[in-house]
Amino acid sequence: MIKVVKIGGNVLDYEAALKQFCRDFAALEGPKVLVHGGGALASRLQEKLGQKPMKIQGRRVTDPETLQTVTMVYAGWCNKQLVSLLQAEGCNAIGLSGCDGNVIKALKRKPLEIDGKAVDFGAVGDVTPESVNAPFLKALLAQGLVPVLSPINHDGAGNLLNTNADTVAASVAAALEAELWTCFEKDGVLADINDPSSVIPELTEASFIGLKEEGVIADGMLPKLENAFRALRQGAKKAVILNAASIAKGKGTEISL
Amino acid sequence: MIKVVKIGGNVLDYEAALKQFCRDFAALEGPKVLVHGGGALASRLQEKLGQKPMKIQGRRVTDPETLQTVTMVYAGWCNKQLVSLLQAEGCNAIGLSGCDGNVIKALKRKPLEIDGKAVDFGAVGDVTPESVNAPFLKALLAQGLVPVLSPINHDGAGNLLNTNADTVAASVAAALEAELWTCFEKDGVLADINDPSSVIPELTEASFIGLKEEGVIADGMLPKLENAFRALRQGAKKAVILNAASIAKGKGTEISL
Repeated sequence: MIKVVKIGGNVLDYEAALKQFCRDFAALEGPKVLVHGGGALASRLQEKLGQKPMKIQGRRVTDPETLQTVTMVYAGWCNKQLVSLLQAEGCNAIGLSGCDGNVIKALKRKPLEIDGKAVDFGAVGDVTPESVNAPFLKALLAQGLVPVLSPINHDGAGNLLNTNADTVAASVAAALEAELWTCFEKDGVLADINDPSSVIPELTEASFIGLKEEGVIADGMLPKLENAFRALRQGAKKAVILNAASIAKGKGTEISL
Repeated sequence: MIKVVKIGGNVLDYEAALKQFCRDFAALEGPKVLVHGGGALASRLQEKLGQKPMKIQGRRVTDPETLQTVTMVYAGWCNKQLVSLLQAEGCNAIGLSGCDGNVIKALKRKPLEIDGKAVDFGAVGDVTPESVNAPFLKALLAQGLVPVLSPINHDGAGNLLNTNADTVAASVAAALEAELWTCFEKDGVLADINDPSSVIPELTEASFIGLKEEGVIADGMLPKLENAFRALRQGAKKAVILNAASIAKGKGTEISL
């Protein structure tokens, strides 16, 4: 089965972690796709350029200057650095943003009403499994290539759009009926946030709802889990949340409906 | 026959020119490849970031900070902007840097002895027709895809390298036994630098050597022409130097050995 592996800033921001991850990812058997976020570099670059990162309800507002910066960082530096490191490990990676071969066509997010005001998120794109050009990805995989997807997509009308990388990974996993491996800095979903060894090995949607109500699962874990459940409902065959340093073992918290 | 079209800053730095170029390029019939440089954006970004662009003998010295900046600009912003605009014109473009599918593996330039001192150009890569993964490019063309190549390449050992875009275009044209169309801001090679209409329709290497000795052809025109002659010697089937605004007509100065 195809594996869709998502990594974020915890891997991208540390050279040693990045190289180890690339070695482990290159060694994974079978067809695979890597989806990456941007890490802290985009915010650091914005700061250096005097651009103010603006967030509304945890979402980055993407004005034209911000779009240029995140495109440079995600589609440029992060993507090409990952691909060149994977190539060095004998993995025939090919870095793609949504516009490349029209692999993901996103829909510009409509302004949202927040506190009675319409808030425009700028060049932000929403994606679903239907946004994904699955035949093209499958054709690349059949040629032995390993797609490495940045979260910069396009609208088909000449505009680039910034997309949440977790959503990209979930949509790609669903469209390819693949396994979704969401990597982060912990070994899985923890029963006790203060005990790194308290990994919950399996989590169903029913038990998730219970643990959420009890406050055991909270904060940043919630969108990751909701994303995994959505991927499964939309067609992904398996979902695992695990440490980026553990992909060789492939063990973390396995999510099921 | 495959066309390899090279554009530079004169197109990339002006939105209206860029959009018109993309319309014209999308409308070109037959298999084609686009190779782009970076324009002034890289220098402007370096300035904003307090990085000093350093050149030795007209060549950019690429220290690690500069490499990150040019990778962000060339492989990120310029490449994805071009691809999304081409997609909007119905051209199924796919943006690639050398690491992607190992399409171009460059060789880090060895330090050169200048005035008795060894000068290291940093992360600068040299390419030849043998650097080009022609079977992969042909496979993409056979699928109806249009490769859009940034001048950021890799060494196969995990390092990105900055390469001269004219050399990339010449090497790709030679490797594909293609036509090389080098675009710039004039209508062709001029017999009188002050008369834009004095385009020389055809230029052989013998007549080039004569015009060079007379001083009729000088400065920035010399490397462009030497590049075109080298491409022809290495396997390109045709070479034209023309205005980026004239690619629909395909007319400029035709170069032959």
